[in-house]
Amino acid sequence: LPADAAPAWLWLAGLPARPAEFELESADAHYVARVCRANPGDRLQATDGEGTVATLEVLSARGEVRVRVAETRRAPRPAPVVIGCGAPEQDRADWMVEKLAELGVTDLHPLECERARWERFAGRADRLRRLTVGALRQSRSPWLLRLHEPATLGAWAAGLPEGLARSLADPSGERPEGFRSTGGEAAAIGPSPGFSAAETQVLREKGFRSIRLAAVRLRTETAAVVWAGLLGAMAEPGSAVDSHD
Amino acid sequence: LPADAAPAWLWLAGLPARPAEFELESADAHYVARVCRANPGDRLQATDGEGTVATLEVLSARGEVRVRVAETRRAPRPAPVVIGCGAPEQDRADWMVEKLAELGVTDLHPLECERARWERFAGRADRLRRLTVGALRQSRSPWLLRLHEPATLGAWAAGLPEGLARSLADPSGERPEGFRSTGGEAAAIGPSPGFSAAETQVLREKGFRSIRLAAVRLRTETAAVVWAGLLGAMAEPGSAVDSHD
Repeated sequence: LPADAAPAWLWLAGLPARPAEFELESADAHYVARVCRANPGDRLQATDGEGTVATLEVLSARGEVRVRVAETRRAPRPAPVVIGCGAPEQDRADWMVEKLAELGVTDLHPLECERARWERFAGRADRLRRLTVGALRQSRSPWLLRLHEPATLGAWAAGLPEGLARSLADPSGERPEGFRSTGGEAAAIGPSPGFSAAETQVLREKGFRSIRLAAVRLRTETAAVVWAGLLGAMAEPGSAVDSHD
Repeated sequence: LPADAAPAWLWLAGLPARPAEFELESADAHYVARVCRANPGDRLQATDGEGTVATLEVLSARGEVRVRVAETRRAPRPAPVVIGCGAPEQDRADWMVEKLAELGVTDLHPLECERARWERFAGRADRLRRLTVGALRQSRSPWLLRLHEPATLGAWAAGLPEGLARSLADPSGERPEGFRSTGGEAAAIGPSPGFSAAETQVLREKGFRSIRLAAVRLRTETAAVVWAGLLGAMAEPGSAVDSHD
């Protein structure tokens, strides 16, 4: 690729099932030919967002873009980083989803809460999923954030895997110190009006520990991003996959 | 105020110089009368964003809204939390500024860098300042983020107060551990194409220590917000001012 070209990191659903040579769909073809200005012989990286990473060789880049799978490898699966999150206000879910994906959150569960519902979710799910793909490309990650369908807080908490450490963002909680369980982490973030007392009780019974993310009460989306940022900053070096330039 | 009314936290520039009774300007009057649904005798909180907090008593709320200053106090000044930040891409400065204000950053300096300039700053400064006011109201803070005029990295680094601890967001740096100097903290965050080698050298010479905020390379605005979030999460409890409901 030209030295000043953008490094390519494509998201190709179903990558492991593709044939040894195939044609890129139009948006990816445009990106490879026009943005990356790729030529035959250039190599690109692609992922299915589920841990498969392939090196692709460009065969042709005039009109259609054809590629050949030169090499395929598996990235190690990161420990789960799971957020159950009440609805933020207005359009704030957009950047929350983008940032959580960029920060390596593996699973985001919109929570239907007593005091707030994800009323805009159905109409925005496609847009939110596009934002997760943009973040995957930005951070060259082999793992796409899984954006789940909305669930009630009770159903979500009941279905969490056993091994996850559990945090509840709460201005009256303890300061976070040295958290990063090897079995993964889960956080519950209240909607803008907060969790109800009954919901907080459910979380406590399910082993959620209150942690204080800031001296002031944060907006929903800010609390989620700060929690994910804390985890990432405190993670052991080398726990993420290298970018393969 | 009605139990379901929004708590009022007004930003009133020049508050200490106002007379004992005065009339609110139209946007604040609308907010107090329509959003908070205040009545005569209700009390509101207001700040100048420079550490003065006043309790105001509503005298009239029909048509014009007149208030009386019932009490004035000074909030303790927080230790400086200073960010020098290269330009993020596109509209991303909007939410970066809002989040940094919400997280208690005291000073944001847009940095003109070799590889990217804040070309959109002049046309957006008013909007960005309105976002800082919104964040002040959201977090009920007596301190408004100071959004400075753009400066070159060299001029900014040369003008920093002596006592500040200094961090440079750098994917190859050390993990942050236990940072929160009592004299305040400063961070340098590169623009989307990164700092140049010469700029990084300038920062090193000025005592900036490389810290790694995540296992992957973060966008400019994400790195700034994660750094500010880390500081807030690691701050001693009680270091911020209580909200005076």
